[in-house]
Amino acid sequence: MASGRLLVEILSIGDELLIGQTVNTNAAWMGHLLENEGWRVNRCVVVSDEEEAILDALKDAESRAELVLITGGLGPTRDDITKHVLCRHFGTRLVRYSEIEARIVSWFERRGRPILQVNRDQALLPESCTPLENPLGTASGMLFERPGGMTVSMPGVPYEMEYIMEHGVVPAVHARMQQQGRQPKRAHLSLLTMGTGESQLAKTLGDMEGALENQGIKLAYLPSPGSVRIRLTAEGDAVHDLEKAHGEVLERLSEWVVSEVGLPVEEALGHCLVNQGQTLAVAESCTGGALGAALVARPGASAFFMGGVQAYSNAAKENLLGVPIALIAQFGAVSEPVAVAMAQGAREKFGSDYGVSITGIAGPDGGSEDKPVGTVYMACDGPLGVLCVRHQFGRDRTRNLAMAVRSAAQMALQAALKWGVESKPASRVADSL
Amino acid sequence: MASGRLLVEILSIGDELLIGQTVNTNAAWMGHLLENEGWRVNRCVVVSDEEEAILDALKDAESRAELVLITGGLGPTRDDITKHVLCRHFGTRLVRYSEIEARIVSWFERRGRPILQVNRDQALLPESCTPLENPLGTASGMLFERPGGMTVSMPGVPYEMEYIMEHGVVPAVHARMQQQGRQPKRAHLSLLTMGTGESQLAKTLGDMEGALENQGIKLAYLPSPGSVRIRLTAEGDAVHDLEKAHGEVLERLSEWVVSEVGLPVEEALGHCLVNQGQTLAVAESCTGGALGAALVARPGASAFFMGGVQAYSNAAKENLLGVPIALIAQFGAVSEPVAVAMAQGAREKFGSDYGVSITGIAGPDGGSEDKPVGTVYMACDGPLGVLCVRHQFGRDRTRNLAMAVRSAAQMALQAALKWGVESKPASRVADSL
Repeated sequence: MASGRLLVEILSIGDELLIGQTVNTNAAWMGHLLENEGWRVNRCVVVSDEEEAILDALKDAESRAELVLITGGLGPTRDDITKHVLCRHFGTRLVRYSEIEARIVSWFERRGRPILQVNRDQALLPESCTPLENPLGTASGMLFERPGGMTVSMPGVPYEMEYIMEHGVVPAVHARMQQQGRQPKRAHLSLLTMGTGESQLAKTLGDMEGALENQGIKLAYLPSPGSVRIRLTAEGDAVHDLEKAHGEVLERLSEWVVSEVGLPVEEALGHCLVNQGQTLAVAESCTGGALGAALVARPGASAFFMGGVQAYSNAAKENLLGVPIALIAQFGAVSEPVAVAMAQGAREKFGSDYGVSITGIAGPDGGSEDKPVGTVYMACDGPLGVLCVRHQFGRDRTRNLAMAVRSAAQMALQAALKWGVESKPASRVADSL
Repeated sequence: MASGRLLVEILSIGDELLIGQTVNTNAAWMGHLLENEGWRVNRCVVVSDEEEAILDALKDAESRAELVLITGGLGPTRDDITKHVLCRHFGTRLVRYSEIEARIVSWFERRGRPILQVNRDQALLPESCTPLENPLGTASGMLFERPGGMTVSMPGVPYEMEYIMEHGVVPAVHARMQQQGRQPKRAHLSLLTMGTGESQLAKTLGDMEGALENQGIKLAYLPSPGSVRIRLTAEGDAVHDLEKAHGEVLERLSEWVVSEVGLPVEEALGHCLVNQGQTLAVAESCTGGALGAALVARPGASAFFMGGVQAYSNAAKENLLGVPIALIAQFGAVSEPVAVAMAQGAREKFGSDYGVSITGIAGPDGGSEDKPVGTVYMACDGPLGVLCVRHQFGRDRTRNLAMAVRSAAQMALQAALKWGVESKPASRVADSL
């Protein structure tokens, strides 16, 4: 391998990725890990399960990158051809690895499942490779040394690939780079904004962006529904100036910053509540539980999340949250009074510091002239009183649900941050990792 | 463009994709749409926001594919360079499109947001392109004619890209293909199995798979946590035999089929309940609402989903679902008696036909020798009685939560299908689209 920063390319194999039956989350996971190692992901390519397509893309990737990571096509069924293609590419043949076969046999025995010949044949691996252990499945990883670098092939099952990356690939590459005395140097800091678009953010930063670039610090704007993440990347000596630059950007954009470290807003909310020793409960109508699910996605949620009611039907709003049926009759289930009553009901039933509600028309049907599809009311009841906001999102159900969850979390975060400031005026309240 | 099936390549631009800050859901969405049009997605490439990388990948893609679809890099901020790269590649220059500028101005006016010069400059487009309308944002799509086909550039914001694909790109390509008298012919059918692995499925199909291939019908096994989707693809004249082949595969795998049309199990559950005029409520502990969220992700959920309780805390299990606190004290919150009481509580509180509960240890902490991380109990109470299952998933929190949701939906689907068979023994119960 050459000197400097390690150049990596990812090659994902599988028709299911090309035709959109599977989303390529593996590439994102690997990219994140590799970036954290200080290596540079140069390109990521998806090709079909066809020999010529795989060979062509593999040669291409090896011509550019020192480390080529292949995923997919290692299953026991007929549509998986990667191993044969690798043998052809590296001029080697499949041989049976008896230790691996013994491990596969015991894998099936432990699970009480019958073993088939195709499962045993997962121990057939190219003679010239170094197998990488996969205790979570039957397909081993394979590491090939080649002129100019290494090529690794892994199964496409996410947790198996993740294990092999962490326990096999990363240590092997580190060992190699240490031999060569190469030290990557690169750092990121992020922040998360809500409430304005990327053009307004860029304008507010003004000439600061050019000045940072001259210092060796790049800004990237990463918009997603309802929020924009800003990432600062420093290379080389500029890593020493990164923290100062991050502070300056935070200062300039303070009006819109919801997380100083770029945490997703649901996670920033959890951190803020845990720091303040407060709790929260939810009352979800159209989102059906998605806000609660977002809050518990990260470990440690039991420190602040008491639970909630998925009040999809009007009867549930009345019986489980105590929303007066007369209120629903008069204003409709999607209305400010009902959103407020739901939030108050959640706070009371769960005895939490905050109650957060969502009620809306996610679409595609159910809209009216007055309340078209995308109308969502959300309320937050807490120690400083109650807030209610009406949002008008778009026509797409999936997006409306995602926007509702994010906006409700933001609303709760604002309420919690305000409480933090008012109850401890001397110290700045920030989310901390 | 040449004859035969249209060959497409997707080029996604953005460092955020390479370093895993964003998952490339756009490529999956496009792949799905293109496949449904009968076009063939040959390759999908992700490159960084760098001029040389973009140019290199673009030339490569154009050398292979008739239609090249580019997403990303069209925002108003400094890190977006696609437009300039396209001008260089196609030997043209940016000119101001006054109609588009007027549309952008009114876009900001309608939203009551101030317009900036960078927003107005979104009306600067390459002179040689055909702009494609984007009413959902300020970045237009751009269609370039070139020897051998077309290249299209679109913003990376998913719903904007989706609009431009559906309203701009697909009609333009269809018009072109009609002029050329080209008719793609290709069809898919899927089915979903749970309860066994892909090797067992393949073995059960035996020589059927080879026979189908000789007929021109390909099988693909698409495993995901807890289930395997099988996709049958026919090309050319074989499309006429596809339905018969699908029926034969269903018959052979009947033991494991949970959806005859390959619907995700949550959706198959919804269809089954709606067909039978039944309703369901949930009681979720560790999943925090994710089962409810999965059930309402598709429109029409109000026909069967009554709601639920996110009983994350023991107090919530007791107060909102009527789980006796003594039961929790004796057996623990993660136990069969508590899972059963939660399901019964949900069914009773919501007056639904089925109550489905989930209680488990998602991890990474909280496990014991007796109940390690990944232990999840789930119960389904319904008109035929109550079912309870203990699952032992793995160590990964995200995967455990996903497996719990899918397995609980499968359990409810089995209970509902059983009810359907027992109450209408003469007719076969199948999910229908």
